[in-house]
Amino acid sequence: MINLFSDLPDASLAEVFTPLLERPGCRIERILSRGQTTPTDAPYRQVHDEWVLLLAGAARVALEGREVALLPGDSLFILAHTEHWVTYTDPTVTSVWLAIHLGEGEMPINPPETKNPGL
Amino acid sequence: MINLFSDLPDASLAEVFTPLLERPGCRIERILSRGQTTPTDAPYRQVHDEWVLLLAGAARVALEGREVALLPGDSLFILAHTEHWVTYTDPTVTSVWLAIHLGEGEMPINPPETKNPGL
Repeated sequence: MINLFSDLPDASLAEVFTPLLERPGCRIERILSRGQTTPTDAPYRQVHDEWVLLLAGAARVALEGREVALLPGDSLFILAHTEHWVTYTDPTVTSVWLAIHLGEGEMPINPPETKNPGL
Repeated sequence: MINLFSDLPDASLAEVFTPLLERPGCRIERILSRGQTTPTDAPYRQVHDEWVLLLAGAARVALEGREVALLPGDSLFILAHTEHWVTYTDPTVTSVWLAIHLGEGEMPINPPETKNPGL
């Protein structure tokens, strides 16, 4: 098992997603960021709930009309269907996130209105 | 939301368990230890899988005939029904664990043979 804080791959060019464990209702992953942010016109929006914990570094997340500053030990619950943006990750150090995806796959990926009504 | 590393309650007299989030298939809690260990004759043995991540401090866990030393960032997967013991937690600092209980409640707590056969 990897140590979540050691031998971190370089995340300066792109965020690094490492799957840690996946079970029904619960998927755990580590995310490494170094300066990346979410484009204003392309927010994250998931059909499942997510709980994130910042383990190292510094970040800010915008959601529901507010911006939350996160330091190590801070967690954030992101309700399904909530648009959210990572507005800041420290460009000088690697930020380490633990993300826990809850109840993933229990709802259809495509909302009903995208179905072909002829089917 | 609490910061998992700040304003830690005193765990020197007893471990402190703080529920963080509970969803079907996934219960997240923080555990604080300061010197506690599991009695040799009373191992932990759960009917569900557990994933633990040591966030701060130092600990050792015995399971499946081996003893695993954990430092911050180290995680351990504990399969359901596996007897395990915390054999060491640093008595000089507070160890901070993140424990994720997986698929809890999906199996009966009492094995079938304990049911009253007359019912």
